[in-house]
Amino acid sequence: MPAVAPPSLLVNLDAIEDALRAALQDGPSELLSVSRYVMGWEDADGQPAETGGKRIRPALCLFAATLFGKPASVAMPGAVAVELIHNFSLVHDEVQDHDAERHHRPTVWARMGEAQAINVGDFLITKAFEALAAAPNSAEQRLRAIEALNAAMAAMIAGQWADVSFETRTDVSSEEYLAMVRGKTGALLGAPLAIGAILAGASPEQAAALQEWGETVGLAFQVQDDYLGIWGQPNLTGKSNTNDIVRRKQTLPIIHGMAGEARAEILAAYGQELIDNEAVGRVVTALERVGADRATKAGGERIAKMADDLLAGFELPAEIRRELHAVGRYLIDRDR
Amino acid sequence: MPAVAPPSLLVNLDAIEDALRAALQDGPSELLSVSRYVMGWEDADGQPAETGGKRIRPALCLFAATLFGKPASVAMPGAVAVELIHNFSLVHDEVQDHDAERHHRPTVWARMGEAQAINVGDFLITKAFEALAAAPNSAEQRLRAIEALNAAMAAMIAGQWADVSFETRTDVSSEEYLAMVRGKTGALLGAPLAIGAILAGASPEQAAALQEWGETVGLAFQVQDDYLGIWGQPNLTGKSNTNDIVRRKQTLPIIHGMAGEARAEILAAYGQELIDNEAVGRVVTALERVGADRATKAGGERIAKMADDLLAGFELPAEIRRELHAVGRYLIDRDR
Repeated sequence: MPAVAPPSLLVNLDAIEDALRAALQDGPSELLSVSRYVMGWEDADGQPAETGGKRIRPALCLFAATLFGKPASVAMPGAVAVELIHNFSLVHDEVQDHDAERHHRPTVWARMGEAQAINVGDFLITKAFEALAAAPNSAEQRLRAIEALNAAMAAMIAGQWADVSFETRTDVSSEEYLAMVRGKTGALLGAPLAIGAILAGASPEQAAALQEWGETVGLAFQVQDDYLGIWGQPNLTGKSNTNDIVRRKQTLPIIHGMAGEARAEILAAYGQELIDNEAVGRVVTALERVGADRATKAGGERIAKMADDLLAGFELPAEIRRELHAVGRYLIDRDR
Repeated sequence: MPAVAPPSLLVNLDAIEDALRAALQDGPSELLSVSRYVMGWEDADGQPAETGGKRIRPALCLFAATLFGKPASVAMPGAVAVELIHNFSLVHDEVQDHDAERHHRPTVWARMGEAQAINVGDFLITKAFEALAAAPNSAEQRLRAIEALNAAMAAMIAGQWADVSFETRTDVSSEEYLAMVRGKTGALLGAPLAIGAILAGASPEQAAALQEWGETVGLAFQVQDDYLGIWGQPNLTGKSNTNDIVRRKQTLPIIHGMAGEARAEILAAYGQELIDNEAVGRVVTALERVGADRATKAGGERIAKMADDLLAGFELPAEIRRELHAVGRYLIDRDR
């Protein structure tokens, strides 16, 4: 699994950080201060920190512009916008999931309460649209980019709605699950590509094709992640392989097992107050008995193949196609 | 106090309702169903209901277009957008304030939990931008309208942030309070006017002038409401005049009293587990002793006068100016 991002996603990281900082200059000082905390530039005491994310989405947005022969910089307002929307979604998700920590730091709601965390998320949305509306592009292009961002946000929220609603259900189908993931995870991987393309002058068709590829790549990543969440080697993935079950997550293998003869074991384990290692083991054994491991792995490979097929259909020079393919593999195999 | 809205704000109510329904057609069926509940068209069982708001903001938006000689209908996408943003803010506010009821109906979070209420609010934001982006206007006008809506949303959220932060402070100044109200209440009364004007082809200066007037009117309304919240006659206002104090609200008279010799009485009452009628009485007496009633009334009148002065500066035919003035008085004197 490639641990290092391809050069296309790394070359502009400093410029992205500068542009994000510039986008968070105007507004009430306290909201800006919390926003800097969310972005990872400050700790809880307002002291400088460097704990920001990998900026995969903005990097994708800039990269998309270069596919159309434009400098990456033409897509910078879009790069800023997608990263701010990503961070809005993290802040609201943390409230919704009651996660008190992310990357070993207290989340916003854990620091200052749910009410203000909701406000911070809402504020970041306005900063995203503000950045995109202020791009030096034509009104037409800016409007198309705003529509793409807004539609991706709507799809992401629909995915989040579905994800929350799944928590109280035991009859979620694989189709429902994959549709949820395409919204929750895929939409904000497809949108950066579409927006970068739009700001570089691409046609609606070109932007839509890249967007679909990005969404599909996001879907493949999540299914792979679901597999590794149970059958990954912690020393290779760096992540626990019991956590998904301990936290009662409804990932693809669980949904597969729940629809078949592993249902009783899963319901028994998920019904326990505390899911111990023994219970995790019983669930894993039951999942393997019904082939949920192989089905999930095959599902992920099938979706990754779909992404490759989409890519093969693009009219692109061979070199650029190879670059895109490398970016896709990195996204599918990346850590979170 | 005028109980009935001026004709300018009433003529298009049915068309507004139709346009709002049309804007909430596409999306996941459950999110659309909850949205219909929020808009007041359905009860909790999905049965038809008629409990929607007064649609003051969309009516203002349509009215603004007519000031520039255009049919109200040219501003309909803006009318839809401002009402959806208003409803997004209500849904998130209810979570933030832990209000379990609004207009005798359970709020969204009370029905389906905070996580889904946050999602519903976020979803309504995307529907607002979607409606505005799809207007038949030029890309330039649509973009200006989107920027006006987004800026108003940012101001509203900043106001909401300040309002929440005031809850744990006892040193809020009148200036801070009025700045908070201008954002929280004023921004979304000014924006409909600006957006309606923009969609009708008004210049940036014309739109900005109307917007400032609307914000100022919103501010005057809130200060008047603060006065009536303590010294109003319940049989005339239809509202309790003890509730603001019982709920420990920091309204303008309280802030005035807290900065002077009513501070001890207010802190003593607000520190009680339950604020009974006797404690309310002591606070009111202390407020009157320091002239908080007269100061609030005079403050409201001063702001209403500011709005009138702004209006006097507009280049408008006398008849239209009278109409705008009537709309302003209705807004200042309206119930919530």
